[in-house]
Amino acid sequence: MKVFSAIAVGAISIAVLTPTYAEQVRHEPVQVIQPYISEEPAKVELGKQLFFDPRLSMSGIISCNTCHNLSYGGTDNLKTSIGHKWQAGPVNSPTVFNSSLQIAQFWDGRAVDLQEQAAGPIAANVEMAMPHSLAVDVIQSIPGYREQIAAIYGTDQVTLDHITDAIAEFEKTLVTPNSPFDQWLKGDDNAITAQQLAGYELFKSVGCVSCHFGEALGGKSFMKMGLVQPYESDSPAQGRFDVTGNEMDRFTFKVPTLRNVALTYPYFHDGAAETLEEATQVMGQLQLGRNFTEDELASLVAFMESLTGERPELTLPFLPESGPDTPRPDPFK
Amino acid sequence: MKVFSAIAVGAISIAVLTPTYAEQVRHEPVQVIQPYISEEPAKVELGKQLFFDPRLSMSGIISCNTCHNLSYGGTDNLKTSIGHKWQAGPVNSPTVFNSSLQIAQFWDGRAVDLQEQAAGPIAANVEMAMPHSLAVDVIQSIPGYREQIAAIYGTDQVTLDHITDAIAEFEKTLVTPNSPFDQWLKGDDNAITAQQLAGYELFKSVGCVSCHFGEALGGKSFMKMGLVQPYESDSPAQGRFDVTGNEMDRFTFKVPTLRNVALTYPYFHDGAAETLEEATQVMGQLQLGRNFTEDELASLVAFMESLTGERPELTLPFLPESGPDTPRPDPFK
Ligand code: HEC
Ligand code: HEC
Ligand code: HEC
Ligand code: HEC
Ligand SMILES: [Ca+2]
Ligand SMILES: [Ca+2]
Repeated sequence: MKVFSAIAVGAISIAVLTPTYAEQVRHEPVQVIQPYISEEPAKVELGKQLFFDPRLSMSGIISCNTCHNLSYGGTDNLKTSIGHKWQAGPVNSPTVFNSSLQIAQFWDGRAVDLQEQAAGPIAANVEMAMPHSLAVDVIQSIPGYREQIAAIYGTDQVTLDHITDAIAEFEKTLVTPNSPFDQWLKGDDNAITAQQLAGYELFKSVGCVSCHFGEALGGKSFMKMGLVQPYESDSPAQGRFDVTGNEMDRFTFKVPTLRNVALTYPYFHDGAAETLEEATQVMGQLQLGRNFTEDELASLVAFMESLTGERPELTLPFLPESGPDTPRPDPFK
Repeated sequence: MKVFSAIAVGAISIAVLTPTYAEQVRHEPVQVIQPYISEEPAKVELGKQLFFDPRLSMSGIISCNTCHNLSYGGTDNLKTSIGHKWQAGPVNSPTVFNSSLQIAQFWDGRAVDLQEQAAGPIAANVEMAMPHSLAVDVIQSIPGYREQIAAIYGTDQVTLDHITDAIAEFEKTLVTPNSPFDQWLKGDDNAITAQQLAGYELFKSVGCVSCHFGEALGGKSFMKMGLVQPYESDSPAQGRFDVTGNEMDRFTFKVPTLRNVALTYPYFHDGAAETLEEATQVMGQLQLGRNFTEDELASLVAFMESLTGERPELTLPFLPESGPDTPRPDPFK
């Protein structure tokens, strides 16, 4: 967690600070997002290329960006993802924006960090369906990748770790600072509307913030979905129980970030809630035993809309050309 | 065709010209590519967003960029494309780079220009499978698109013509000037190797250039595939015959551009030739009745590699958010 100035200062005295570079001045259970300045720009560039490269999939048409579209909010905006051979995945694709700010990766937290996570979708049969050894062979066979890896890792022998390490470093740059709400946290009273502020007050007073807290407003704990009232889902996912086998963990999911949540519809691990209104109503009922009024709903949603930050401007990468020995994709395998 | 200075000048007298802005000085059957400066940048930006927008497909995951990947050479580098519901398309995806320099679009030339072309893949069942009326409804329902269209076309009512006109204007910017060969055409003797020059001389002397001529080295005529010796293919495509029903047109295809051809493997309308060597050998035998030596092949290929130009650097667009009434994608429809 980032250190911030905990002094609650009046609006007037901080008006000289420019919002972008200012420090957080309001002491709140939510913290501003800091831009990530990588010390390894060459690795970030390599990771970006890999993130956009469909050759990491057996078919040659699916890249990380297919399901975590950086032109959207880092998801595919589908109920559940479509992967290799048009298979429907079991769960909704979470955003890759700000995913580095979480304690673990996946809805059930089965990967400890971004590097461990990245190995998953490459090989997953419903996603990219690419055996790791073949993924390594492909990257090894592409001269432009070989050169970058030699320069960064000092070896001619590509490994899966190089691939996932570079992707993870790129993903760390995918933070979205400077949302209207962050500007407000930094002292700009005019950055959010009265309705959004009311929504935030409600968000704290009814207890949303007990689960959705921190820089990412989520991502810091696992909680039961359906705490007060059970959640009905047609998805087979059992949450953390699938990882631990512990009965207590059944239907416990990583609390998702609410950063950019206006962009990441539909909602929940099964993608069953189409709108933010619907997801919020469900949260009120199932997690808190409350039925929100229209007004309350509208201000909670308005507050969450103030959490849309600045996505990094990315230049579309040019991918290094396949070499003569590059294994060709096999869409029907 | 562009006007160019037809005076053959010695290398020394033109050494002061910087390659990028210089005029063509060599009188050749191939002309340099000119950058395209659009007079309608807002339309280009809109077209770029649409080109990258998977909401133009029924599934919500296929965009123009899926099959014409601008991180590659404007194709998907597959034998034949994979479209809606993982259907294999009948033909190889041609590049969108420099497609504006052609007399017609598609392998069989069935679209007269880029605007007419763009309507095709949106509705084609093996590509995006999106009825035109639904595509228009989707764009109409997205506030960010509505605003751009109102500003550009002065109307609140989105039509298919707006969508395809904007995509076409974006595609016109996808030219790739300043390849090593273009620099040579502009007088820089050192821009290509001796082998590449030898390849070009061979390209002219054996007659490749009678079909692959002009700015795009192709795209200006329809020619029979298998002129001297028939071409065996498992593809059902009959070329221009499918358009005209004229027996003379059977197996006649638009001569493809050789610009960036090193990036657009595999080759031919059926994607049957995996390498440029193979495609060149086939061309020699089937179109010209010649068997090239290893040396000849190598220099022809080296020449074609000098045709890789500068692809425009693109900022990844942020796509406008769906509105409350935006029809949601239906991947399994
Ligand atoms: C076919 C769709 C698909 C592809 C391709 C895909 N993902 Fe995912 N991704 C998902 C889904 C679905 C999940 C959630 C899975 C789960 O939680 O069990 C996920 C989870 C993640 C997460 C965890 C986020 C969180 O908050 O828990 C990260 C990070 C991620 N993916 C990155 C990547 C990277 C990097 C690649 C490429 C190497 C990739 N994904 C390829 C669909 C996809
Ligand atoms: C007891 C913990 C807890 C409380 C309290 C809670 N949430 Fe959640 N929230 C979760 C969990 C866990 C999920 C993921 C559930 C799932 O996907 O099955 C979630 C999901 C969400 C989502 C969907 C995010 C997405 O990307 O899919 C939204 C929106 C949300 N919560 C908002 C709220 C609001 C607003 C409140 C207060 C009214 C609230 N939450 C209260 C734990 C909680
Ligand atoms: C599923 C794959 C796929 C998608 C999606 C797709 N295309 Fe194509 N495209 C192709 C194939 C295959 C052809 C060749 C078809 C033919 O010639 O009969 C083609 C042909 C073209 C051509 C003609 C190029 C030439 O030299 O003849 C252009 C231009 C083009 N597409 C642009 C687009 C645009 C714009 C979109 C999005 C609106 C799009 N494509 C979507 C696969 C696709
Ligand atoms: C009589 C006309 C003609 C001549 C002569 C000719 N070509 Fe072609 N070329 C074509 C046509 C038509 C195609 C498309 C064939 C197809 O896809 O079925 C083509 C395709 C190609 C391709 C594949 C391009 C792609 O993107 O798929 C290459 C490479 C090529 N020609 C190079 C050459 C070379 C080198 C020569 C001389 C050795 C040559 N051509 C001579 C008409 C010709
Ligand atoms: Ca979602
Ligand atoms: Ca090709």
